[in-house]
Amino acid sequence: MSIQTTTMRSDGQQDRSFVRTFFTSPAAVEGETDSAKMLRRAVQLRGMRAPDVWVPDNEDATAPSMRDDGIENIVDIVAEHGESFPGEIHPRIVWHRDRPDTRYQGLQQMLYIADPERGAIEYIDGFVVPEVGDIDDWKKADECLTIIETEYGLDEGRLSMSVIVESGQAELALADLRDEIGKPTNNLERLSLLVDGEVDYTKDMRAITPTGELPAWPELRHNTSRSASANGLIAIDGPYDDIRDIDGYHERMTTNQAKGLLGIWALTPEQVIEANTAPLPPKTGSWLLDVNGHTVELYMEDDVHIYDGERLALEKTETDRYRFRVGSEEQAVCDDELHEELLNLTDYVPSLTDIVDSMETFEEATEAGKGAIAMEQSTTLSIDGVEVSISEERMWDEATYQAAQTPISLFQDVYENRPDQREELREMYGEHVLKRAMNVG
Amino acid sequence: MSIQTTTMRSDGQQDRSFVRTFFTSPAAVEGETDSAKMLRRAVQLRGMRAPDVWVPDNEDATAPSMRDDGIENIVDIVAEHGESFPGEIHPRIVWHRDRPDTRYQGLQQMLYIADPERGAIEYIDGFVVPEVGDIDDWKKADECLTIIETEYGLDEGRLSMSVIVESGQAELALADLRDEIGKPTNNLERLSLLVDGEVDYTKDMRAITPTGELPAWPELRHNTSRSASANGLIAIDGPYDDIRDIDGYHERMTTNQAKGLLGIWALTPEQVIEANTAPLPPKTGSWLLDVNGHTVELYMEDDVHIYDGERLALEKTETDRYRFRVGSEEQAVCDDELHEELLNLTDYVPSLTDIVDSMETFEEATEAGKGAIAMEQSTTLSIDGVEVSISEERMWDEATYQAAQTPISLFQDVYENRPDQREELREMYGEHVLKRAMNVG
Amino acid sequence: MSIQTTTMRSDGQQDRSFVRTFFTSPAAVEGETDSAKMLRRAVQLRGMRAPDVWVPDNEDATAPSMRDDGIENIVDIVAEHGESFPGEIHPRIVWHRDRPDTRYQGLQQMLYIADPERGAIEYIDGFVVPEVGDIDDWKKADECLTIIETEYGLDEGRLSMSVIVESGQAELALADLRDEIGKPTNNLERLSLLVDGEVDYTKDMRAITPTGELPAWPELRHNTSRSASANGLIAIDGPYDDIRDIDGYHERMTTNQAKGLLGIWALTPEQVIEANTAPLPPKTGSWLLDVNGHTVELYMEDDVHIYDGERLALEKTETDRYRFRVGSEEQAVCDDELHEELLNLTDYVPSLTDIVDSMETFEEATEAGKGAIAMEQSTTLSIDGVEVSISEERMWDEATYQAAQTPISLFQDVYENRPDQREELREMYGEHVLKRAMNVG
Repeated sequence: MSIQTTTMRSDGQQDRSFVRTFFTSPAAVEGETDSAKMLRRAVQLRGMRAPDVWVPDNEDATAPSMRDDGIENIVDIVAEHGESFPGEIHPRIVWHRDRPDTRYQGLQQMLYIADPERGAIEYIDGFVVPEVGDIDDWKKADECLTIIETEYGLDEGRLSMSVIVESGQAELALADLRDEIGKPTNNLERLSLLVDGEVDYTKDMRAITPTGELPAWPELRHNTSRSASANGLIAIDGPYDDIRDIDGYHERMTTNQAKGLLGIWALTPEQVIEANTAPLPPKTGSWLLDVNGHTVELYMEDDVHIYDGERLALEKTETDRYRFRVGSEEQAVCDDELHEELLNLTDYVPSLTDIVDSMETFEEATEAGKGAIAMEQSTTLSIDGVEVSISEERMWDEATYQAAQTPISLFQDVYENRPDQREELREMYGEHVLKRAMNVG
Repeated sequence: MSIQTTTMRSDGQQDRSFVRTFFTSPAAVEGETDSAKMLRRAVQLRGMRAPDVWVPDNEDATAPSMRDDGIENIVDIVAEHGESFPGEIHPRIVWHRDRPDTRYQGLQQMLYIADPERGAIEYIDGFVVPEVGDIDDWKKADECLTIIETEYGLDEGRLSMSVIVESGQAELALADLRDEIGKPTNNLERLSLLVDGEVDYTKDMRAITPTGELPAWPELRHNTSRSASANGLIAIDGPYDDIRDIDGYHERMTTNQAKGLLGIWALTPEQVIEANTAPLPPKTGSWLLDVNGHTVELYMEDDVHIYDGERLALEKTETDRYRFRVGSEEQAVCDDELHEELLNLTDYVPSLTDIVDSMETFEEATEAGKGAIAMEQSTTLSIDGVEVSISEERMWDEATYQAAQTPISLFQDVYENRPDQREELREMYGEHVLKRAMNVG
Repeated sequence: MSIQTTTMRSDGQQDRSFVRTFFTSPAAVEGETDSAKMLRRAVQLRGMRAPDVWVPDNEDATAPSMRDDGIENIVDIVAEHGESFPGEIHPRIVWHRDRPDTRYQGLQQMLYIADPERGAIEYIDGFVVPEVGDIDDWKKADECLTIIETEYGLDEGRLSMSVIVESGQAELALADLRDEIGKPTNNLERLSLLVDGEVDYTKDMRAITPTGELPAWPELRHNTSRSASANGLIAIDGPYDDIRDIDGYHERMTTNQAKGLLGIWALTPEQVIEANTAPLPPKTGSWLLDVNGHTVELYMEDDVHIYDGERLALEKTETDRYRFRVGSEEQAVCDDELHEELLNLTDYVPSLTDIVDSMETFEEATEAGKGAIAMEQSTTLSIDGVEVSISEERMWDEATYQAAQTPISLFQDVYENRPDQREELREMYGEHVLKRAMNVG
């Protein structure tokens, strides 16, 4: 659908603030009677199976010999099904910072797709431009979009532009963007997604790993997220190649989220589901136990969180005395020391309900004129059958409150903009907390 | 006190080159009969309990409704006690890159505090400006200070400006600074401290962690340190939230120091003491043993450094033959191999005396016309009762010498600029090495 | 030799695209009858013992009092032996961003060395400039080279310029380079190598580590590699101090390569050999097994890859049932689960032959009109005597193909530009695969 939402404004605000999934589908598949079958399948996805941003891909996913078919497929499928697709639609065309002929092909592809007579453009939110170079190359792509808007009588800025950052040059451009956006001779305000493309980036950086695996490129991901933050854009991590490894994909998202990179490329329907759900707060809270760098989640039985691994051992020797082993180090401790040790070893992962509770509590405190309050978290742990209650206080001030708000804002954004996912959210969390979550913050 | 020391000059030099502690105190506490009690307590700190930079905080630490009281408290307390305070005084006022009204409030707060008739300004070194944006926003804050200096007849540049880097925009500004500082239409040479603010930065970057903990943001800290280096400024890490976890605070400082980020925010008197002492070289040297990533400090008895953990096992089987186990890998080794293995596993942490010794030795060698000399480090280790002597040579050249000088320069800076800490330094290190440390380098 | 190869062009291409080794030799040694003995030794190196870039070093490696001798030695030795030296020759002169007198000395040293009457310049490819500051300081050095070229009637751009990045300022300049290179008032297109200098960088950043070891500076290395990528230059990591620790040196190169930093400083002949060979693909492939972060290479016997450590245990309990222990976690698994688990634990490091095979296969598929094909990797593992066959498919598309090409391009570059190493390459890999490797890609 086209809700013209990702066009950012120079005040760092955009209507749709979060994109979890960037799902590419080959625009044409070779050797098939229906070369558009991947597009046809994708456009009919709904709910958690449908991405926030869908990218009919006429670049890398489509063989060079099939790209003319690809363009036609995109136009046909989007014209037919675009209206009812629940996410945004951003086709990827060809482009290359070093090749004027490829750039001109890109312009022609966009002119073809955007022609109002073909009936697709009204459902298209913008275009994805791969292989961009430095900021002046971004301006060339922006100019192509301005030409298209003028040619077809669209409002200036109507088409958003997303770029794939897959070269050292483009990474450097991320830092130049804020100085260039808003200049009178460009329309870079149309920028929407900054997408990392680690495969080609690895090639451009000439990196080598022994096994051929992609490097993790933490600095690139940081710089992309930072530029998104500084320019009111949305950062998306590149594809995760090992499509069977959903655990690895999930872990990658966890490290991404800690960088403020909340969206990720999806290559398969399984990855779409995972990418849609992973950034949402969990339904139930959980306790983690970290022993020498190994983290395990405790399992719960009758409100008690139980650890039954080998890395800890606990025995009550007498009143207020315990023998406590962590890894290979054993010590005798009293109640208070045990409590302290366990606090250090454990961490709590709050649920949606927990976050909403804390935020509501803080909001009430603020209304009552308080700037900071203590929030308590407590539970009963069981180790080798010995039960221990632990509790911890954390100070909440305005800054804590606002940081806690990110997952809630994301949740609200999803609820608002993806009506097709509401039913699943309701099933996952229950009606009650869902309503509270929509009203907090 | 105001010693006008942190105003940096464009040659990358400033009088006071090191700041270990950045200690914030709420400018007003709500619901107290003495709303200035935190200021009153802080201004009377001395010695290792007093920070290098003290920040009466009228922003986040003070509830919005108390900020008028805060401004008055700052003026009163600083006017009364500022002269005898041993560190620098940099009040934090309100500011926000996105809110002109907040910026105007910040200007008014500074005008109030700096009014010479109120008697505080002569003890104030500068102001801390939070929530700055890109470099043009920094210039707005700089302009406010220029206005204040002109209005009150202070020398241009008399008031230093420190910024809290707590947005992607401000992080990008760190890289622009060197191009802008020294331009005729600004007075950015007044910049003093670059302070990371990870709580708000996390919010601005929209980062999420499962437990709500702050991400470590290594790139931000690198970029702050690099900008300090390139512009002759001082880099300070943000607050460490878990105020009971002094070990964690210490570890954070160790990783910071390896980035050239030698100062840190302190929230409590305990953190001030830790932040003041941690960057100083240790009184006695120590040997570390690293087995598969687990580092332990050996303990000393009669000049022998003893390891009595489980991770190593050593047995002498015959003359020049040992059975040696590291973790789960056991091998038979001869004297030389054992020596080599142990050298790889051990590291020496030099004391102040060691550093001074090495520097003096190198200085003598240089005077004798030598460019590089070998320094030997040797000791006796004891593992499972088997004693082994190890020794290692390290080449020292001019570059090694200069790198070793950083902790000594910091030490000298503290001794020079903090007379109130001299007694404690004397007690810690002894008069003899202290004198030598002041003369070396 | 002077093949004028490293002068980069603004299209990001240069003739010689890879430099593995940057080997410095003191230009003069004090207290020796032959003060040029280190130069004399180095210039006669051949084959894997000779570096890609040789740096007669008249800066840090030579005592200040010996630098006049150093300049004469460089001229003498290069004039006599330069023609037959198989790598490039880039002398390092003195320079400092903060000291005009040092810069003027640098100009004089270069004028002396480059004087055609002295007979050295025709074998010299360019100069290495240490201690550069921001980009305007790089332009000063560039201007010195322009003066020298004009003075001696050399073509503009004939002398390449390499810089040592050893200050925060210079690191920032890496990001400015692309905007400045190609401007009409400079000749920065002469830039060749970007070399990190971590010892002085550590000093400039004022970093402290407890043991005095150098920090790893991952961000600096990333930024250097990125600037090389964005400007068509070559990135070189700084010296590895612990010259006896060849394993550590090798590990450093592995992490560097994953950053696209393919060259490294060498201080000793052993380091030269290691730095020349480590970036080349291995002769034989190998399987790695990673258990809880500990990676071991399996050894091969009769085409079976054998693990005989303690971290895994495998026992066949009945048809299609196994007891399988990983670390301390044991589970019962069927054939398929075992296969899956082992796939997750293992990684394959391809040989030169493997890479050439895959690339040839992909090239054939492309000619047949296919855009992506599956490559299978399979082997038999043996754990506790139980043999298990595993196989894994990996999709190859154009991007995979191009990323795989980096080690092959490096190989081809070495073969083309270092005829003195061909014999060793032939011995290492055999004539057959070597020929195929030269034709692929």
